[in-house]
Amino acid sequence: MRIAQVAPLAEAVPPRLYGGTERVVSWLTEELVADGHAVTLFASGDSITAADLVACVPQGLRLSGIKDHTANLLVMLKEVRRRADEFDVIHFHIDLLQYPLFQDLAHKCVTTLHGRLDLPDYHPIYAAYPDMPLVSISDNQREPVPSVVNWVRTVHHGLPSSVCPFNAQGGDYLAFLGRISPEKRPDRAIRIAIEAGVPLKIAAKVDSADQTYFDEIVKPLLDHPLVEFLGEVGEAEKCHFLGNASALLFPIDWPEPFGLVMIEAMSTGTPVIAWSQGSVPEVIEPGRSGFIVSSLDEAVAAVEHAKSLPRRLVRDRFEGRFTASRMAADYVEAYEMLLGAVSPLVPARLAGGAAVTQSGIAAGRL
Amino acid sequence: MRIAQVAPLAEAVPPRLYGGTERVVSWLTEELVADGHAVTLFASGDSITAADLVACVPQGLRLSGIKDHTANLLVMLKEVRRRADEFDVIHFHIDLLQYPLFQDLAHKCVTTLHGRLDLPDYHPIYAAYPDMPLVSISDNQREPVPSVVNWVRTVHHGLPSSVCPFNAQGGDYLAFLGRISPEKRPDRAIRIAIEAGVPLKIAAKVDSADQTYFDEIVKPLLDHPLVEFLGEVGEAEKCHFLGNASALLFPIDWPEPFGLVMIEAMSTGTPVIAWSQGSVPEVIEPGRSGFIVSSLDEAVAAVEHAKSLPRRLVRDRFEGRFTASRMAADYVEAYEMLLGAVSPLVPARLAGGAAVTQSGIAAGRL
Repeated sequence: MRIAQVAPLAEAVPPRLYGGTERVVSWLTEELVADGHAVTLFASGDSITAADLVACVPQGLRLSGIKDHTANLLVMLKEVRRRADEFDVIHFHIDLLQYPLFQDLAHKCVTTLHGRLDLPDYHPIYAAYPDMPLVSISDNQREPVPSVVNWVRTVHHGLPSSVCPFNAQGGDYLAFLGRISPEKRPDRAIRIAIEAGVPLKIAAKVDSADQTYFDEIVKPLLDHPLVEFLGEVGEAEKCHFLGNASALLFPIDWPEPFGLVMIEAMSTGTPVIAWSQGSVPEVIEPGRSGFIVSSLDEAVAAVEHAKSLPRRLVRDRFEGRFTASRMAADYVEAYEMLLGAVSPLVPARLAGGAAVTQSGIAAGRL
Repeated sequence: MRIAQVAPLAEAVPPRLYGGTERVVSWLTEELVADGHAVTLFASGDSITAADLVACVPQGLRLSGIKDHTANLLVMLKEVRRRADEFDVIHFHIDLLQYPLFQDLAHKCVTTLHGRLDLPDYHPIYAAYPDMPLVSISDNQREPVPSVVNWVRTVHHGLPSSVCPFNAQGGDYLAFLGRISPEKRPDRAIRIAIEAGVPLKIAAKVDSADQTYFDEIVKPLLDHPLVEFLGEVGEAEKCHFLGNASALLFPIDWPEPFGLVMIEAMSTGTPVIAWSQGSVPEVIEPGRSGFIVSSLDEAVAAVEHAKSLPRRLVRDRFEGRFTASRMAADYVEAYEMLLGAVSPLVPARLAGGAAVTQSGIAAGRL
């Protein structure tokens, strides 16, 4: 299949530093190339890929000091549009700007929505372009979106199995990894660890937007012998940090659309203790890859249970459900559904599971 | 002429509070209606106009708490595009998003660029869509823009002559009006007033982005018997504040694209003492509507000269050059140039002054 992947321009693909979306685009792109597809990646020029790279800006815009990415994204889309005939499928990983320009090509376009969808800012576009095929990264992510939209399917993220290698031993500390922010609830993680009497290591960056929260809420809690704050850790250290833990604490307080760190921990064999929010019930299988809790007491009990969860079982659940190769296979299936649904050669009833796609496209195009 | 005006959605047209672009769009729209044109205004639903209002959102997005305006702007543009056949000319007052969707209608579209153009964020779009007709609000504003673009003309802003009535007496203080920010140089205004021994009144809002600048640089200077800080003043008080002054200080330190406050002061008969930056040499006629200076000493001397400048002369220069009716006439001329340049009935050589327009459109369309 001839596939265009259209990435954000904030970071390289893969990103030098932080950049969840760009990491996922990179993993997907490389898997598709490995599977023999002809993939063209529209991304920043400092991206590294086995696909054909179309460099839309010299380097990721964050490093270039460009704050408003709109103009560069529009120029990239103009080039994608110019070359649209070269692709069977065009897969967008940007939020909004492609809708007007690709409305008449909706039958061969798909957009993965990578962010939270509970803010009203973006909702008007969904109602205005109900025919544009969308992919959610968890079923839960869809909840706040008006029902008119054309969901093709949910594709959970996947991680190449070698990125965070299995660690059979694990370790004796609890891990917290991510941004320091109120919705990630590092304060809750600290309370769980102290209550359980188990050491906690926090590897997290503090964005300037969250500095006050860190100073006022988190910092006073760090002064406890069981708690260690490591600051931000790089990609390479991250997997060691996760693999050497007894469990990952994921005590979130917001509708997390996916939560890559959960599958990174699972990849190392480390079970996840997560609050029941957002994507968590779709990602964690209680008693197999971790525990889903809804109170401090349940979390403390889970810390004990996690010790007896076989790490090999956690890794197996990762391999069964969250590899990049599974993700790529899901997307290829989505592409095929999309194309099958409008191809005159394939009767719609044979394109299994494509009902939503068909009706959505029918509403917009037929 | 059937004219569409496409406004930003941040504020109502006219705005309840601050909103320079929305004020100009309102003045232009009402003048065009008064001149007998059939005007359709695409704007927020709380706008007040004699034109046909197409309410694209219920109220200005700033008041609705919507931070990212992109989705709502794209939905507005979809509606403008759907109705494009109804208009002879479509006049955009938004920055960027219209380019891809109206490329094939460039011959009847024009975009006024209302902001500073010296940041690199927007430049890629100009090179990608060189045929889109643009209007600058001062000649100086064009300087940082790549030379490929299709400038139709400069149209200086205009103000309805009744908005800031002529004040024959004036008063005995110097006025500073605007945002407190490093590029507006309130610190310089304070030094001029103290040096000249004349009272200074500062009517200015402090945005959260500028709070540190205010606290560290400006606040220590306010503690002087000649200096009075009034905070933010409303639209109604503003004209009194300007009209009762002996001069407006406009000691800017950035390429101001236009600077509405200069013509608001002129409308009341108050002369302007301005630093030679951005649009200033195009707006101020030295010795007639004010003084252009480039040092503290020159500014202090100008404070003295301003006292003997006849306020009637300042008002005359406003009436001759900066009314909304002059602005509307300029825009109608621009619309006619635009249409004449591509109409097969009007030989190009007769459409005086349209050379840039023609070559720009020719490059894009012929």
